[in-house]
Amino acid sequence: MSDLHKQHLTISPNGTIGILGGGQLGRMLSVAAAELGLRTHVLCPDERAPAYDAASEFTVAKYTDQSALAAFARSVDVITYEFENVPVEAVAFLTAGGAVVRPGAKALETAQDRLTEKQFVNSLGAMTADFHAVDDLASLKTGLERVGRPAILKTRRFGYDGKGQTRITSDDGDLSAAFDKAIKFAWDEVGAAPSILEGFVPFVREISIIGARGADGAIRLYDPTENVHRSGILKTSSVPAAVTDATADKARAVTRDMLTALDYMGVMGVEFFVLENGDVIVNEYAPRVHNSGHWTQDGCAVSQFEQHIRAVAGWPLGDPSRHSNAVMENLIGDEVHGWRDLAAEPQACVHLYGKREARPGRKMGHVTRISPRA
Amino acid sequence: MSDLHKQHLTISPNGTIGILGGGQLGRMLSVAAAELGLRTHVLCPDERAPAYDAASEFTVAKYTDQSALAAFARSVDVITYEFENVPVEAVAFLTAGGAVVRPGAKALETAQDRLTEKQFVNSLGAMTADFHAVDDLASLKTGLERVGRPAILKTRRFGYDGKGQTRITSDDGDLSAAFDKAIKFAWDEVGAAPSILEGFVPFVREISIIGARGADGAIRLYDPTENVHRSGILKTSSVPAAVTDATADKARAVTRDMLTALDYMGVMGVEFFVLENGDVIVNEYAPRVHNSGHWTQDGCAVSQFEQHIRAVAGWPLGDPSRHSNAVMENLIGDEVHGWRDLAAEPQACVHLYGKREARPGRKMGHVTRISPRA
Repeated sequence: MSDLHKQHLTISPNGTIGILGGGQLGRMLSVAAAELGLRTHVLCPDERAPAYDAASEFTVAKYTDQSALAAFARSVDVITYEFENVPVEAVAFLTAGGAVVRPGAKALETAQDRLTEKQFVNSLGAMTADFHAVDDLASLKTGLERVGRPAILKTRRFGYDGKGQTRITSDDGDLSAAFDKAIKFAWDEVGAAPSILEGFVPFVREISIIGARGADGAIRLYDPTENVHRSGILKTSSVPAAVTDATADKARAVTRDMLTALDYMGVMGVEFFVLENGDVIVNEYAPRVHNSGHWTQDGCAVSQFEQHIRAVAGWPLGDPSRHSNAVMENLIGDEVHGWRDLAAEPQACVHLYGKREARPGRKMGHVTRISPRA
Repeated sequence: MSDLHKQHLTISPNGTIGILGGGQLGRMLSVAAAELGLRTHVLCPDERAPAYDAASEFTVAKYTDQSALAAFARSVDVITYEFENVPVEAVAFLTAGGAVVRPGAKALETAQDRLTEKQFVNSLGAMTADFHAVDDLASLKTGLERVGRPAILKTRRFGYDGKGQTRITSDDGDLSAAFDKAIKFAWDEVGAAPSILEGFVPFVREISIIGARGADGAIRLYDPTENVHRSGILKTSSVPAAVTDATADKARAVTRDMLTALDYMGVMGVEFFVLENGDVIVNEYAPRVHNSGHWTQDGCAVSQFEQHIRAVAGWPLGDPSRHSNAVMENLIGDEVHGWRDLAAEPQACVHLYGKREARPGRKMGHVTRISPRA
């Protein structure tokens, strides 16, 4: 297939979308695909991944298993991924074999490394926190002199839900033994892996934009949501967010620029810090459907999951406008055991992921409470 | 399991719902179950049923295959059906083996025969068209004398979408040769099967109520929809229906009475004719999710499919209130080929069933257009 053909590939109803990754996002993507008359085939290393029950077909295999990847590619019409830690090598292998992967390797690769991600955002003229690459204790010390304290040390790769990061708050003298001890502790905490030190951002709230770009280059953005985290894990996303139109427009403009610069196809979630003066600073982006967009299932005619499937299948993007206000709350760990009471609540939309064990910190489901638009 | 235990059986998240029948209704029930963290197992005689792609598991088997039915029952926690022509014998066999089937055999059996259905409705004090059982040409002639003309002759069993019925409009003298020829033709048309002759109802519109009754006896009713048929097949369902509150209340009261009298668990669709004076006459009911309730997927927090799964699983019923106005349009036969234009329409929610061949008269999908409540 020529690059031009790949760019314009459209999957007709009854076609099959391949999904790398079998978590709850893959499950909800499979559900959305089924609503559109499309099939899904999920590939995931887990024996019991949440997506299997909702997918048309699944393969249990490692992302490094090239013969499984090749068979998977033959069985589908287009491929996407549902989490950003799929190895870029797997996507490169699939693409080299002729498969169409949407969004492509560039968006994935850029997002996988917090350093390249921030450099990319800055290259578009958008703001990030101050940052400094950290590869050892010496560069950590230099970084702290540059970005000041408090600061957050994060692994460049494979962090999620607050894992792989630690805060450095010591206000001891720069060269004291206490300070050396603090940075040594932080370095141990992140596992002495290639890291990034991020300066403190005095934000007043966190928002995100869920954006989509279609095969035709069209861009559709959902309304910004306001996000509250608890123990590093998203707890609630509310729409409308308490931000001015000017702030929302700044976040929208950055999201558009990112989608365009990456020649993106699919849904992307971009997290922002909002400053006192209304400016926005990009925290990070996810090259996939995003937890802060789950409210779209119940607040919009076309959910982020359907929007992603539409983009990946080369269909026209759907209308992202909102028919209701919404507050999405994640059900984390044991909270899922309250499903019966949640199900009895008026205007509460319950979504459970079919995970068998409610471990602490594990996202087990979410509930979205909708209300009429003011 | 005692009858009391069966009555109160609750299926927890990760449990499995068995579904007899693999059409689009089974597909959409599977999707709804997946959203609630439940698994589905579909049993259907078709090699390629639309529900398979969305179900967690499926079995291709006839409803008369008792060993397949027994294995199916062992693999699930509760059983439901998605179309009303599942043989009552299959349900009786499953129930005798200890399985819990919701709704039970009574609702199915009553609905399968237009004669017992009308007698049941009348027994509740609700109105139906005049009717007369027809078993041969002689009883057809007697029936026509009783219910007058025009009249509709329908097979008592297995009719759907206008199939198995014919209109008798002859206004020739009662005993003329032309009349004899007309009734002979009608009798041939319905296949000389046990039939029912229904008198003409001078209705001004058709509406339906989608109602649900839970394991706890709670009843929830969606807003009435106004239905338009074309060539005997539902074309559009619109909500709100252009009826007075008094008419809507009459239809609601009948639906409640039917759900209670059948000790029903699940979703039921009841079709009504509305007369000039605002009275309602029951046309028929379906002991399952119903085409005229598809709009609830996009117009309500909890769809009829989720509501049915909740009832069958013994969960609390959901809030049936409506956040939007909606017009559902069936995509019949070739109309499905317009999916691309429909997908591009703002506020249009496209649902396709994954059927491979667009035969004339076949329901291939539907589109629901939503708009703000006035």
